Amino acid sequence: MNASPDLKDRLAEAARYALLRRLAPALRHNMAGALQPVAMIATMLEKRLQKPAPDFAALAKNSNDINTLSREAAATCMALMTWLAPKDNEKVPAGEGIADAVGLLVTELSFRGFTVVNESTGCTAAVPRSLLRNAFMASLIALTDEGKSPANVVISATAESDALVVRISLAPTDGEPSGNASHAYRALDWSDVDALVAADNATLVRGDGSVELHFNFG
Amino acid sequence: MNASPDLKDRLAEAARYALLRRLAPALRHNMAGALQPVAMIATMLEKRLQKPAPDFAALAKNSNDINTLSREAAATCMALMTWLAPKDNEKVPAGEGIADAVGLLVTELSFRGFTVVNESTGCTAAVPRSLLRNAFMASLIALTDEGKSPANVVISATAESDALVVRISLAPTDGEPSGNASHAYRALDWSDVDALVAADNATLVRGDGSVELHFNFG
Repeated sequence: MNASPDLKDRLAEAARYALLRRLAPALRHNMAGALQPVAMIATMLEKRLQKPAPDFAALAKNSNDINTLSREAAATCMALMTWLAPKDNEKVPAGEGIADAVGLLVTELSFRGFTVVNESTGCTAAVPRSLLRNAFMASLIALTDEGKSPANVVISATAESDALVVRISLAPTDGEPSGNASHAYRALDWSDVDALVAADNATLVRGDGSVELHFNFG
Repeated sequence: MNASPDLKDRLAEAARYALLRRLAPALRHNMAGALQPVAMIATMLEKRLQKPAPDFAALAKNSNDINTLSREAAATCMALMTWLAPKDNEKVPAGEGIADAVGLLVTELSFRGFTVVNESTGCTAAVPRSLLRNAFMASLIALTDEGKSPANVVISATAESDALVVRISLAPTDGEPSGNASHAYRALDWSDVDALVAADNATLVRGDGSVELHFNFG
């Protein structure tokens, strides 16, 4: 499709929307997971207080834990909301940003027979977080959706003089294939990936069971 | 634009994305507001426990409150997440659905000099919640973005034999105009509204300082 600049923006927004819908269960699950322990310890504390001779050390521990956990839960929820409303122009070391992005999908991928092997952690080149949360995540999803499980998903990031290259490749492993991805909303396809790659001024090189994302630092 | 069916879907997704970005600060604010009291009471409880002769009735009250509030906060966060990942085919009484949708914007509108007068609360006709959270919300935003404050925003819903008509109209009031909406992302325009109205099989009738959304029950 030869899209006008305005239409290109809309197609990137549509891809971001489809990506958010795909990530929504993981976002919700992580939110619930952060909130659950607070209520659990509050219940424990309530029971302790009903005893005739409460254990003060345990009470103090529980109330301290609730305090810490409730603040952590609030911080987690706010951090997860940045998937919906990203900070403008935020840059992040590539390895750290990739770990953050992949972290949201690693459980789902594992259920589907994909084991993430993240070899990018040492890469400290600064890149836009949006590149990793949009183009990279959509590539990871499109690649695993069309790939066969079980497989290792090998992720590497190499900073060259003027560009970062992020590579995702599937390496088949022995075993029974697992279930396919469930698309409660719609599948992300390569046209979505293209729209996101273009929005972040990157380029995509697709191979057989692999993709490379090239991002110029310039 | 004469959009193909597929392109129409993409334009509706783009509009939903822009709408979510616009609503994100309110979603985040409501989340933080639900989580904050838990940490506050946890701090209070910790201080009480450090006293030489703790007040057990107050401790029991605090721990009970934490338990209740943390469960409510989790429920609030999950409910807010349905703005991102709506339930499929959910229908809701129009008055209730309008109140739910408007509730997310009423504070922002008030800061901008718009007072919501919601006359739709008695309308019990069942309509898709998506219509109220997408086409209706986008209409409300587009109308107030281009309207002059201060004004009352009068919202009514009338169920006729075969259709629901939701009307939003601006009624200017006396006073100084307030600040404009801030568009950290981008403004929603009437082409976004059209895309959302079409996606929910509704029709839009625009007047001077008013809009009507017609939805056929058929």
